[in-house]
Order: sequence, then C-alpha cells, then structure tokens
Amino acid sequence: MDTERGPAVALLSGGLDSSVLLHHVARDLGRKPLHAISCDYGQRHDRELACARWQAQRAGVAHHCVLNLQFLGKLVQNATSLVHGGADVPDLANLAPQSADQPPTYVPHRNMVLLSIAAAYAESCGATDVFYGAQAQDEYGYWDCTVDFVDRLNHTLALNRRNAVTIQAPFATLRKAETVRIGMRLGVDFAHTWSCYRGADRPCAACPTCVERRHAFEEAGLTDPLTQTALP
Amino acid sequence: MDTERGPAVALLSGGLDSSVLLHHVARDLGRKPLHAISCDYGQRHDRELACARWQAQRAGVAHHCVLNLQFLGKLVQNATSLVHGGADVPDLANLAPQSADQPPTYVPHRNMVLLSIAAAYAESCGATDVFYGAQAQDEYGYWDCTVDFVDRLNHTLALNRRNAVTIQAPFATLRKAETVRIGMRLGVDFAHTWSCYRGADRPCAACPTCVERRHAFEEAGLTDPLTQTALP
Repeated sequence: MDTERGPAVALLSGGLDSSVLLHHVARDLGRKPLHAISCDYGQRHDRELACARWQAQRAGVAHHCVLNLQFLGKLVQNATSLVHGGADVPDLANLAPQSADQPPTYVPHRNMVLLSIAAAYAESCGATDVFYGAQAQDEYGYWDCTVDFVDRLNHTLALNRRNAVTIQAPFATLRKAETVRIGMRLGVDFAHTWSCYRGADRPCAACPTCVERRHAFEEAGLTDPLTQTALP
Repeated sequence: MDTERGPAVALLSGGLDSSVLLHHVARDLGRKPLHAISCDYGQRHDRELACARWQAQRAGVAHHCVLNLQFLGKLVQNATSLVHGGADVPDLANLAPQSADQPPTYVPHRNMVLLSIAAAYAESCGATDVFYGAQAQDEYGYWDCTVDFVDRLNHTLALNRRNAVTIQAPFATLRKAETVRIGMRLGVDFAHTWSCYRGADRPCAACPTCVERRHAFEEAGLTDPLTQTALP
C-alpha cells in the first residue's frame, strides 16, 4: 500500500469478502486510523450486520458507523430480490445463464450509493481511500463490482482535486478462494461472517452466494466453520 | 429532449434551479411520468423542503419521495457549514477569493450521494434519466456541479448496459439569470422557492446563495417575489 496515503474508510457488509478486506487493510494501515461503514438498506440478510459489528471490533477500527438506509430498500424493492418486499431469492441452480441482464440479486446502484456515502465520510474525516470488497470473478456478474467501474468512478472523483478520495478494490480481480486463503492467513474468524442472501437462522446452501462460498472454501481446501454442521 | 427516452426522475431541492428544472422537464416529458426526489440531509435550510413539496404538487409529478438522510449531515458536519452542527454559514463578502479549495458551503460528495439514490430509484421504476439543477457558472465553484462531473459520472453509469440511467444537467452551462428567465416563461412561482443557506424565517440577503439569487434576478431585469419586501 502506498505509504503516502492517509487514514481509510472500509465498507463492511459483514460478509466474507469485506470482512477479510477489513483485516487486510487494518494490518497494512498500521497506526493510521481505519473507519468502517455498514448499512442496513433493507437487505433480507441483515444478520450480516451483527457479523460486521463483531469484525469491526476485532479489527480495532477507530469508528464503526452502522447507517440506517432502509429507505433504499423501499425505493428499489420492485427491482431486486435482495431486500424485504422484493421477489424471492432464487437458487443458483435456477438462475438464467449469463446474459446482459443483471441477476435478480442485483440491487440497483447500491454500490454507488454506499461508495458515495463512504467517500463523503472519508473526505470529512481526512481519509484518502475507501476500500470495498468487490470481486469481479463472481459466478454471476455485477457491473458495479468490476475494475472498469472502480476506474471510472475514480476518474469522476479525481475532479475533487483538493480532497480527492480514491476507491480501492484490491480483491476485484481475485477468485473468492484466494480471498478465503488471505483471510485464513490473517486469522479471520469466518464463523463471524455471513453470506446467505436468504438471511434465515442457518445458511440455505442453495442461494447464489451460499454456493459460491462453498465452492471457494472447497477450492481453497479449507473448511467453512459457519456451515460445516449445516451444509451437506 | 430525445423522444426515445422514457420516464424521468428529478432531484428537487426546492431551490430556484431545481424548481425551474422540474417544470421544464415536466413540460418536455408530456405524458411520460416524472418522479421527484427531495432529501433532508440535515441542511440548515430544510425549509426548502416545503417549497419542494409545493412545486412537486404544482408540476403534477407522478410521485414525490422525500427522504430522510439526516445521517449524511452527521457524517460530514466537520467539513461543511451547510448542515446543522457545522460551522456558521459565511457571508459571500467574507469568502476567500477563488482557490483550489471548495467553499465552506460545499457538502462533501452530497451530489454524488443524491444522484446515486436517484439513479437507483430511476432504474427500479423504469426511468431512463435523472435530472438535476447543477449550474457550473456559480459565483463560487463546486466540482460536482460541472459538465465534466456529469460526463464522467455518465461514463461510469454506462457500464450498466442493460438499464443505464443517464444524468442530465441541462442548466449546467447557463447563467443563473437565464434559469430565472426560463422559470418566468414557464410560470414558476418563485415565491415558493427557497435559496438562503441560513434557513431563518426570511432570506438573510448576505450568504452566498442570497447574493447570487439577487444578482440573477437583477441581471434578468425581474423582481424576486420572495425577497422584494425583505431585501434592501
């Protein structure tokens, strides 16, 4: 990491990727402050926020903001299955093959909203970077998790010449299995990360992110402590 | 306006520019639905929201969302005078001459946050365009009110190939006096628009936006019905 950079803000969902990223950034920043932002945007799996709180405390962040953005879920519930009031979350097996459409778990412009809020906070608290756990190698593609998206957004933010904040997505080109390996090396406790989009008491084992997470642990040759007693 | 475009969303602060823009877009859209979004982000001049409601009703919008974003004001209050809890709003006469810095009335990344939320809503309700009343010719400059900003943001949003929303800022290169003239031709009732950043019962006549508004009416050769009894 560039040692010229200052304090940082990390978007922390409480999922696997953002939790590993939080600890990764905390280690690299050393004594520079790291702030975390988590958002309740009406997601079905709002139990991820309990994991976010746990991970933020474990990482020793300077400040963890948990924001109520439930209005966002209400604005977009017609167009996503990820929030309360939206259509049911599909099994990965029932998702249409890759197409130009975004999958039903896509939340319109959620990432741009969250990154903008994080950038606002970053500029206000003197942070130079906003980290988020985008992964371009998902088994289903989100346009707002790509390197192109980050590059173009940074090109926009660079207009704020005096206090430009830079979006950093260091895992964007990694396979999820590699993120799992990084997390293991950092000692991340994956039992305190949540992925399942359905947000019931136990992971459903069938929704897109449950399958993706299982494949990642399998590929990494590791056991997922969250699901070892629940998944077949 | 391109007749191939669909319904639209307009950001409506209740100020002069966004109110004129709302009526301008409503006229051009004809029978296509126009939605409006207004936000309480903790601004001192939250009385502008009453004007927003008045103008939205007058323009006959399909739906007017007034969102509670007070969390945003709290996140950025260290870095702006525009929100409750921030430093005092300066008189224009006391502002430093043009510099690389943003003026104290700049709200970090507010426009990006609001545009992202509007884009989320637009994509969800099938709107193709988000309108906002940016003006690049302000007497003090905001980086996120420029044509460059809109162009770069649209370059980012274009990655959402299936449902790309386009940001439209048709007044971005106009002088404010020209916006006043357009409003007069459209029959906009300027008595129901609010500009003063201080947000007291009457416009203060000295803050940057009060002075700018007065100059605009003077240049247009028109009388401001909001201030004719209050300003010297």
